[in-house]
Amino acid sequence: MNKKEVIVLQDLLGTNKKIAAEIRGELERRGILAVNLLSSPGAGKTALLEQIAMRLKTRAKMAVIEGDIETELDAERIRAKGVPAWQITTGGACHLEAKMIAKVLPGVDPDIDFLFIENVGNLVCPASYELGEHLRCVLLSTPEGDDKPKKYPKAFTTSDLLVLTKADLLPHLPFDVEKAKTEALELNPKLKIFVTSAVTGQGLDELLDYFWAMHQELQSSHA
Amino acid sequence: MNKKEVIVLQDLLGTNKKIAAEIRGELERRGILAVNLLSSPGAGKTALLEQIAMRLKTRAKMAVIEGDIETELDAERIRAKGVPAWQITTGGACHLEAKMIAKVLPGVDPDIDFLFIENVGNLVCPASYELGEHLRCVLLSTPEGDDKPKKYPKAFTTSDLLVLTKADLLPHLPFDVEKAKTEALELNPKLKIFVTSAVTGQGLDELLDYFWAMHQELQSSHA
Repeated sequence: MNKKEVIVLQDLLGTNKKIAAEIRGELERRGILAVNLLSSPGAGKTALLEQIAMRLKTRAKMAVIEGDIETELDAERIRAKGVPAWQITTGGACHLEAKMIAKVLPGVDPDIDFLFIENVGNLVCPASYELGEHLRCVLLSTPEGDDKPKKYPKAFTTSDLLVLTKADLLPHLPFDVEKAKTEALELNPKLKIFVTSAVTGQGLDELLDYFWAMHQELQSSHA
Repeated sequence: MNKKEVIVLQDLLGTNKKIAAEIRGELERRGILAVNLLSSPGAGKTALLEQIAMRLKTRAKMAVIEGDIETELDAERIRAKGVPAWQITTGGACHLEAKMIAKVLPGVDPDIDFLFIENVGNLVCPASYELGEHLRCVLLSTPEGDDKPKKYPKAFTTSDLLVLTKADLLPHLPFDVEKAKTEALELNPKLKIFVTSAVTGQGLDELLDYFWAMHQELQSSHA
């Protein structure tokens, strides 16, 4: 990058950080835990949210903000599970920014417990933009390969959770779960790791319990 | 984007296009066909190149330029097949740019027939940057889902070939090959589509024949 490009990028990231902090504060006042989901295209973010929607239904209220370059397909899938969803189509932009979330937020029910934000499918750019989330959750699907943490480090170093998805496909793939875990933890020793499948349900209750515990913590620290 | 951001981006794309045209001209003078491979992380770009290396060996000379955020892993895999490979690590940048290729090119054997460029794993950003290629080839792996062309259109509208990869996993997935083909062709009726597997070898000879025919065409038009 040349000097002019660097200055423009710094301005943009600085402004984004400020808006993200405002969003985080507003959500905390409302007692809402926000989770930002990051991954490659097709790693199973929407399938995970469908499973979360079905499991949370009886004990909590949630909403979803969907980020995509084009189409309303993902928001429609979430709404079909009885959960309110807002679609942000970026029209080409490779990541969500805090200002896009700020625009949608006034329409979101203030009484929900969880706000899930599904970022644009991209393992690179979204890692640089806070959206006001309390937890950042990177998904890695088994067909992508166990070498991805080392090759795309920022998504893993900036996340709180790593959710390995499509564990049901493991018998058909050369993916080494222990290698992926070890290399991800070398990058970020604080990562909580869950091995999951939206097909068999593996690991989803554990993940939900973790989200629930984080929500309780948020509420008690802001009571 | 604000006005300042738009101007910086336009400058950058304009400069990139100019350098890409120079690279394309230089490669044509040498009789080299360049192919730019685009896809999500883990769609199988390196596995495809390993298969191409093994199949081309007896009838042509090739070289590979690997683009990654971090690590030299992919270049090492290619070199293990006896093919010269250059690794560009972008250190965070989400796509290759023509100037990065221009820097590597003087070291590449001028007598090769094919130059394959493996872009950073990202289905969004690389679509906006020409690298001097003659053919742009987007890969879509079956585990990613058949809805991806509509959701990430630019990679499909700007490509010459669509290579569906990991066809061996189809029995375990809800992926509809005809739907993916139809929706990709709706976006770009000129797309050549190949259904492949690096595990079973499906579709690879057809793909190689196509690359070979394009190489012959390039040589005869610049003879």
